Amino acid sequence: MERLNHGRLENSLKELGKVGATPGGGRTRLALTDEDKAGRDLLCRWIREAGLELKVDAIGNIYGILPGPGGAVDSPVMSGSHIDTVRDAGMFDGCLGVLSALECLRTVREKGLPHKKPLAMAAFTNEEGARFQPDMMGSLVAGGLEKLEDIYASVDEKGCTVGEELERIGYRGTDTIRPSAFIEYHIEQGPLLHAQGIQIGSVTGIYGINWWRGRFAGQPNHAGTTPMDMRRDALYGLSQVHVRGTELARRTGARFTIGRVNVAPGIPNVVPGTVDFTLDLRHADGPTLEHLNKAVVGIVNEVAAENGLELELEQNVNARPVAFDASLIAMVERHAAARGLSLMRLGSPAGQDAQMMANVAPTTMIFVPSIGGLSHCPEEQTGWPDVAAGAEVLLDCLLELAG
Amino acid sequence: MERLNHGRLENSLKELGKVGATPGGGRTRLALTDEDKAGRDLLCRWIREAGLELKVDAIGNIYGILPGPGGAVDSPVMSGSHIDTVRDAGMFDGCLGVLSALECLRTVREKGLPHKKPLAMAAFTNEEGARFQPDMMGSLVAGGLEKLEDIYASVDEKGCTVGEELERIGYRGTDTIRPSAFIEYHIEQGPLLHAQGIQIGSVTGIYGINWWRGRFAGQPNHAGTTPMDMRRDALYGLSQVHVRGTELARRTGARFTIGRVNVAPGIPNVVPGTVDFTLDLRHADGPTLEHLNKAVVGIVNEVAAENGLELELEQNVNARPVAFDASLIAMVERHAAARGLSLMRLGSPAGQDAQMMANVAPTTMIFVPSIGGLSHCPEEQTGWPDVAAGAEVLLDCLLELAG
Repeated sequence: MERLNHGRLENSLKELGKVGATPGGGRTRLALTDEDKAGRDLLCRWIREAGLELKVDAIGNIYGILPGPGGAVDSPVMSGSHIDTVRDAGMFDGCLGVLSALECLRTVREKGLPHKKPLAMAAFTNEEGARFQPDMMGSLVAGGLEKLEDIYASVDEKGCTVGEELERIGYRGTDTIRPSAFIEYHIEQGPLLHAQGIQIGSVTGIYGINWWRGRFAGQPNHAGTTPMDMRRDALYGLSQVHVRGTELARRTGARFTIGRVNVAPGIPNVVPGTVDFTLDLRHADGPTLEHLNKAVVGIVNEVAAENGLELELEQNVNARPVAFDASLIAMVERHAAARGLSLMRLGSPAGQDAQMMANVAPTTMIFVPSIGGLSHCPEEQTGWPDVAAGAEVLLDCLLELAG
Repeated sequence: MERLNHGRLENSLKELGKVGATPGGGRTRLALTDEDKAGRDLLCRWIREAGLELKVDAIGNIYGILPGPGGAVDSPVMSGSHIDTVRDAGMFDGCLGVLSALECLRTVREKGLPHKKPLAMAAFTNEEGARFQPDMMGSLVAGGLEKLEDIYASVDEKGCTVGEELERIGYRGTDTIRPSAFIEYHIEQGPLLHAQGIQIGSVTGIYGINWWRGRFAGQPNHAGTTPMDMRRDALYGLSQVHVRGTELARRTGARFTIGRVNVAPGIPNVVPGTVDFTLDLRHADGPTLEHLNKAVVGIVNEVAAENGLELELEQNVNARPVAFDASLIAMVERHAAARGLSLMRLGSPAGQDAQMMANVAPTTMIFVPSIGGLSHCPEEQTGWPDVAAGAEVLLDCLLELAG
């Protein structure tokens, strides 16, 4: 049984997707910019038009609340995500979750669907971290994991602070909302569901993430006159780390990426003297990730020793995996099955607002397929029937949780 | 028996080494700049002061000639190298060969050492190729391997041509000198002699050199959500090429270098979509190098296919090995042995002016050790006793060749 107005949901996604439009068919709404403000203003208008109570908290998270019987607004059952974007983003990342939650609340109100608890939709500030760090900023604060003063002090490349920019765009609020349960509906941003033709992903948790910044320093030298066994080739060290680290990741179901590399002096006939690099390592399981962490550091040190390289290695991210609530996971799967939707369990290797909300309330997520696994680009796409199916499951879950 | 004035040779090297001095203890005399002109002017003064005939040819090569009996100047026995430098160079690369040849001719004249043929010293234009391409420009023309018009048209980054710059600094001459034999005295620029405590390297020829410019294009993607076996990671392809190519080079005595790498988009949590790279492959033996050439191209294509990468690969240098004259090689070794100097045969994996001169006359080279194998840097160093020993062998050879 379909209850939502799917045409209205689709229109909302397309309308919001026009805000901050860029020439290549994407959109850019970096957190707390004028474009982000324009997106927020549109969302707030829709929240009011839907008859919801609009609330904004101290970090600029926007909430729309449908009170329970007797006007109760505390401890709502909440669903949400974010509407800020990376540069030249797609229209689904984050917005799907925010606007589907909005559509659920519109529908509950319009159709008078029964609920004993208040319902809330949320749009969290600066999930992407493309302008201000840390990312997932709004949910970090809402989840009680960061102090507001520290977050206000975060500066962008031009020296603007989060606190100043929240004031400037008019989204430094005073409300406090704490959910009794949280469900985030999101695109997978990866290829697994689409590749297997599966409609619904039941998300069991968030992968742990480790980042390192590193430098190998060897000896720049003549590419002709320096025999292979007398080189201290910094780039060759990194190539060995890449191959060994990838083999390790393949054996263990981890993700291992070298994304940024700078080689000096960078001349065709000079053996590279230094290379600066980043490492990104992820796994769904905590103990496995701890083991892999040590193994990767071991590989880097081994390679440095084998090649006579000096090594600097600094771990700048060390986020443990987050497990979602077992009963909420089961509930998502029950409703998906009742609707005859194909389903698989998976972890989210990307960070999500839900991982922060899991700190204050039972939490889970629903994924729908990303065509070709593409995300963070204008080509990001999810089929409209999948958008609709996921939103219906979300509504099923919200109504069950709200009694 | 030592015949040369080694103090004067040492002083000449140090004096020329001050021209174009840079703050870090190096010197920069890029070809046909004001600094190169200052170095040339100093050299020409010394040539005149030594009582030699000064000649300049159309590409700006400078010659000092000591006529034979009866004033003969044609078909001299010649020794030389270059005095242009890379940025922040050492004082020995090239200058050792030019100033030792000058010192030999000074000594022959001063001491009236007998010679039936004329003797010549040479300083070839733009060996380094740090400003104008191709490198080894002066010897390419002197060796009859490039047309003067093409070389005149070569432009630097600012749009200046070789022809204009030769005019501007006053070194576009009209003389033509063709040697009957050629010996180049040079530092090894590699670690082999120094590591083994050997004083003289008898150079059997020049390694063949192959260069490629390449690009792997895959799919930039999320470092978390993209499973290892669904990636098209351009940098991972290059890392595999690096490891496999290095194994191949180690097995076959080749040199294999990846010197320049540019990764895009270059973001820590994005799987690299494209990587631009250079490959440098060298071997002393022609047939082996041809085989290795195919093997390297095979590796690059294999890796592209294995990783689903698009490949662009352009070979922009393909220089076959050059073998030096067997009787001149034997002569160098005879004189080194007669002086009780330790000796080894080796090829030059770096390009040299001698390889071009080998096209017009019997040619060989003498190497002396580079401390730690360092070159193209201010730390480039050769012990003064080694400088002296090599210069004496050079004089022995010039006198034998001149009868």
